[in-house]
Amino acid sequence: MKRSQMFTKTLRDAPADEVARNAVLLIRAGFISKQMAGAYAYLPLGKRVLDNIVQIIREEMDAVGGQELLMTTLQSRDIWEKTNRWDDAVVDNWFKTKLKNGTELGVGLTHEEPIVDMLRLYVDSYKDLPLYVYQIASKFRNELRAKSGLLRGREFMMKDMYSFARTQSEHDELYEKAADAYTRVYDRLGIGDRTYRTAADGGYFTERFSDEYQTLSKVGEDTIYVDKTKKLAINKEIYTDENLAKLGLVKEDLVEEHAIEVGNIFPLESKYSDALDLYYTDENGKKQSVIMGCYGIGVSRLVGVLAELFADDKGLVWPKAVAPAQVYLINIGNDENVVKNTTELYEKLKAKNIEVVWDDRDARPGEKFADADLMGIPYRVVLSEKLGSDTVELKSRTAENAELLLPEQLIKKITTNA
Amino acid sequence: MKRSQMFTKTLRDAPADEVARNAVLLIRAGFISKQMAGAYAYLPLGKRVLDNIVQIIREEMDAVGGQELLMTTLQSRDIWEKTNRWDDAVVDNWFKTKLKNGTELGVGLTHEEPIVDMLRLYVDSYKDLPLYVYQIASKFRNELRAKSGLLRGREFMMKDMYSFARTQSEHDELYEKAADAYTRVYDRLGIGDRTYRTAADGGYFTERFSDEYQTLSKVGEDTIYVDKTKKLAINKEIYTDENLAKLGLVKEDLVEEHAIEVGNIFPLESKYSDALDLYYTDENGKKQSVIMGCYGIGVSRLVGVLAELFADDKGLVWPKAVAPAQVYLINIGNDENVVKNTTELYEKLKAKNIEVVWDDRDARPGEKFADADLMGIPYRVVLSEKLGSDTVELKSRTAENAELLLPEQLIKKITTNA
Repeated sequence: MKRSQMFTKTLRDAPADEVARNAVLLIRAGFISKQMAGAYAYLPLGKRVLDNIVQIIREEMDAVGGQELLMTTLQSRDIWEKTNRWDDAVVDNWFKTKLKNGTELGVGLTHEEPIVDMLRLYVDSYKDLPLYVYQIASKFRNELRAKSGLLRGREFMMKDMYSFARTQSEHDELYEKAADAYTRVYDRLGIGDRTYRTAADGGYFTERFSDEYQTLSKVGEDTIYVDKTKKLAINKEIYTDENLAKLGLVKEDLVEEHAIEVGNIFPLESKYSDALDLYYTDENGKKQSVIMGCYGIGVSRLVGVLAELFADDKGLVWPKAVAPAQVYLINIGNDENVVKNTTELYEKLKAKNIEVVWDDRDARPGEKFADADLMGIPYRVVLSEKLGSDTVELKSRTAENAELLLPEQLIKKITTNA
Repeated sequence: MKRSQMFTKTLRDAPADEVARNAVLLIRAGFISKQMAGAYAYLPLGKRVLDNIVQIIREEMDAVGGQELLMTTLQSRDIWEKTNRWDDAVVDNWFKTKLKNGTELGVGLTHEEPIVDMLRLYVDSYKDLPLYVYQIASKFRNELRAKSGLLRGREFMMKDMYSFARTQSEHDELYEKAADAYTRVYDRLGIGDRTYRTAADGGYFTERFSDEYQTLSKVGEDTIYVDKTKKLAINKEIYTDENLAKLGLVKEDLVEEHAIEVGNIFPLESKYSDALDLYYTDENGKKQSVIMGCYGIGVSRLVGVLAELFADDKGLVWPKAVAPAQVYLINIGNDENVVKNTTELYEKLKAKNIEVVWDDRDARPGEKFADADLMGIPYRVVLSEKLGSDTVELKSRTAENAELLLPEQLIKKITTNA
């Protein structure tokens, strides 16, 4: 796409009330727009990043047999009363609304109840299990404060998957298979090296731990103890000798770290399925409980995490797998030959399915360079009269120095590394 | 995908309170699940249809230069007060909710106000215009009654595009370019032949007409007068001699028809831009109003329209462009050779990027045939011992008779027609 045809601009400042670094950078770079505290619109570049993350998550959930669906945001009160999660005294971050006739409705906080209720039509026999379903959609949580930009939203995009198993051991298999898929997601997003599966509290109804996926970061709200060799961690909240022993972790091998939760998986036992009357009949005709797990990834939170984690003092730095484009193309000056060569290179890159932002504006070189850095596009490519028609300048967003190449070398280099 | 791995089943009956034919069929075929009146979840097959429609619309909006973004569902009261659309006495189908501190919020009814408000940061000079932005997302409307299935929802998916022009004539160009894109969308969805651009009321603030896209259907709520030669129509609501003259339509050439609105486009003049203080500075440094248009397509409504329009007494009939799969593959019996040949064909079709549902269940042939028809998959392909290893039976969903082919002929036929 051409900058001259994009409606967004980079901005000198974010709104004065915006204090989160991730949101400040994303707003200044034209990726998001603040609608209110905790609710951000995705502008075209931000939407591309979001879509790229969604696609990676979707591929990995599909790969383990996840079936994608899309539940509604509007929810009926009655199913939530069955699990005792409707009352504001129990769940304190509902957004609720009302039908014309006064009937109260919930505004999509999470989806265990509607999904279990829906499955009652489809799950009956042992032959109907096991299964995973998932969706990627907006969730709404009425947070008292929302000052962390995309890290904690009132409206945010989430991938939520649910597993349904016949036995505890079948559940364990599904749970570990999903855990492996999570590892692949974080690897592909470029944060695998600093993301730890972290034992955490499983909730009042289970003896088991839940697992959080925690990405090390100074701005993280969580404190965890990390065993870097075993690639495991334990949340401070459950950091006791007894739990360390259960997990096979040794105090001396652990390092205290701050971290951001980028996903979590929970064993739900049969808490929701029993409450909502979802059972199956086994091979002997006997009614049995369905063992559930749930698996969340904050998709929009990941946009914020990646923005915050990799940024430097010049702006955003996107991992290639999620960047809104691979190349930020700059023509310096409007010399006829330079424009012609830049046009040709732009078309060639597009023909190779390499996403390009061409800064074709009539702007000072310094302005174009600053925008390339602020937007965090992996490769900056420059053409100018000074370089001559056979030479382009390539600089990786994170490299100190640029290099001079022939256009063909450039394309080869980008397609090989991208 | 294999039926044995899909969690949905076809159902004998829809819920007793479901009266709309589109929803009854879609529920019975396992495409959607009713969450409450006017709010339906999309199960995997339904989500595929929805995604296919979304993709067609996205391609056509991108082709005219539409820039895709994603606004929030939660909306601030203050921007709606500026256009006098917050008060329930003025707009009577809001869903509203509240922050913890009591601040009222709107739940995404439409997005003129937030989009205009957001653009104030980016539109300043005549050089920043013209532009189109659009999104594809859920809308929420508090309808008193919602008995038409996907045709009128309380929660539904919509594509809403907005154009911003410097002059009335520039607006007219954008408006007609978007109108042409709409025509291409309906053509690609397979309803171009029965969908008419229909003049309708433009609203109190403009002398202009708006344009509805109306698809002829007995269950349509609208009455329109159609000139089939000119491919134009006029809504009964504005059917006066004066308006006919303005439109160049002649009473004698018009036929009365029932129709369903599948899209609409509106000239908004500068009603919203002026109210929300979005102006631009022209070449002479003078402040000028921005002329807007808005362009809606009910994406989920289209799922309902296509379901309702093409269905026969056996079930759904999907146009190929939106079908959740092209082939419903059936093995009759579990003879080793038949299963082997079916597996091979299944893999071959997938390798050619032809979506297949393989009904690999241990079920009676009649049950498999009935499901193929109910789900409305364009091609039904059967393998059996009786047919022998070199022969497959192909039947189009809408054809009377089946034909016998070699597997290679089958693949050629489907790839050529699909």
